[in-house]
Amino acid sequence: MRYLKLTVAYDGTDYVGWQIQENGTSVQQRLEETWFSVTQEQVRIMSSGRTDAGVHATAQVCSLATQTKLDNRTLIRALNATLPEDISVIEVQDAPAGFHATRDATAKTYRYQIQFGRIRDVHRRRYRWFVPRPLDLDAMREGAKYLIGEHDFQGFQAVGSERLSTVRHVMRLELHHWRESIFDYLDIEITSNGFLYNMVRNIVGTLVQVGQGNRPPSWVERVLQEKDRRLAGRTAPAHALFLIHVDYGSIRFRPD
Amino acid sequence: MRYLKLTVAYDGTDYVGWQIQENGTSVQQRLEETWFSVTQEQVRIMSSGRTDAGVHATAQVCSLATQTKLDNRTLIRALNATLPEDISVIEVQDAPAGFHATRDATAKTYRYQIQFGRIRDVHRRRYRWFVPRPLDLDAMREGAKYLIGEHDFQGFQAVGSERLSTVRHVMRLELHHWRESIFDYLDIEITSNGFLYNMVRNIVGTLVQVGQGNRPPSWVERVLQEKDRRLAGRTAPAHALFLIHVDYGSIRFRPD
Repeated sequence: MRYLKLTVAYDGTDYVGWQIQENGTSVQQRLEETWFSVTQEQVRIMSSGRTDAGVHATAQVCSLATQTKLDNRTLIRALNATLPEDISVIEVQDAPAGFHATRDATAKTYRYQIQFGRIRDVHRRRYRWFVPRPLDLDAMREGAKYLIGEHDFQGFQAVGSERLSTVRHVMRLELHHWRESIFDYLDIEITSNGFLYNMVRNIVGTLVQVGQGNRPPSWVERVLQEKDRRLAGRTAPAHALFLIHVDYGSIRFRPD
Repeated sequence: MRYLKLTVAYDGTDYVGWQIQENGTSVQQRLEETWFSVTQEQVRIMSSGRTDAGVHATAQVCSLATQTKLDNRTLIRALNATLPEDISVIEVQDAPAGFHATRDATAKTYRYQIQFGRIRDVHRRRYRWFVPRPLDLDAMREGAKYLIGEHDFQGFQAVGSERLSTVRHVMRLELHHWRESIFDYLDIEITSNGFLYNMVRNIVGTLVQVGQGNRPPSWVERVLQEKDRRLAGRTAPAHALFLIHVDYGSIRFRPD
């Protein structure tokens, strides 16, 4: 038995999310079907975590145990030749025995993509949330500071979620802003040792409220303290959210 | 009567092209409908030229004659509030009496967007042609040089087109290459005083043949000389082509 780590990019637009579900096609299902058609082997492919319907990944990490004799170069070529055009395998590496993409993940990084201003950039709308107003980035950065470190993020969790602990450690929360022609773009990147359900999208919705001047930066601290989801901003839409990196601490992976 | 210049961006994916046609919705039709719903005025909106089905624009230039009393700031806001999310008006300016976006254009610039290499970038595939091989950019640049200047471009025109003259002056043809993560991107920008039908897409298809090493750079000169479309490379797909700039010589436009 070999354990493999697959790094996978996908456009989530046409999927019900990562995980296999009754109500439509999932990325996991497509990957497992493709694995079967390449190797004739039925496997379960796990990932670092679910992504919701419409959410993308540039580098989702997956694990599987296999008995295939195909080497990793052959696998990546055959998988990409068979996958639909909205899923690509970026890398195939050997992993230590027992490697499990969900359990072994130590941190994940998401990027949330915004375009703001008076006029919509029609060619970015599929992968960016259009906020049709100016945003005060200094206020947003000030609000973001309250979230860095170990906190109980219950106020940023979707109502009805049940997790044993809602404490997470946000290691990094950065805003990158740039202009191109008449358009303003903003990427919000968040690294944490774990994410509650809808946590990134609720943080983004809250920071955008601050950026629009509807709330002061200190409101972010209040949402943390009161632990009440109804206080926070609206959940930002899924189509602009990307899982971009997963950390596995000291685990080493080899090309083949 | 006021003459206006509109600068318009559109995602061509879901349109039959710029021009009104029987077989589907065109950008022109959507703009004229939107103008009517904002001003109650039926106008004909002309553009610098047709773009084909699936082709995009970041700055198509349009002209119209109007009797509306709405000022240009109000117009841009009202038009954008009414247009579908794949068309945006970028700018509304006053033009000299008689201004005609087609007739008065002195040069146009197109950008053709490529992603090349072993693995498809799933998030760029909607607006870039994926060429699943390495490209020799030096060879492509060498081939491109033959096209700069005044030439008869008949060999790069779609078969069956009928134009009085097939001589055009290409003022600029540049290749911009960059890498991001494991992906290679290539933009080809072409400025000319006019374009024959499918000219940009046939030039790109031909340069890609050169880049893949299937033909030497000097083959580009041969296609020019022999004036035979069947010699040139395949027509590159429409979804990666953008009209990005239109020049109007010394004509001056004012904000309002």
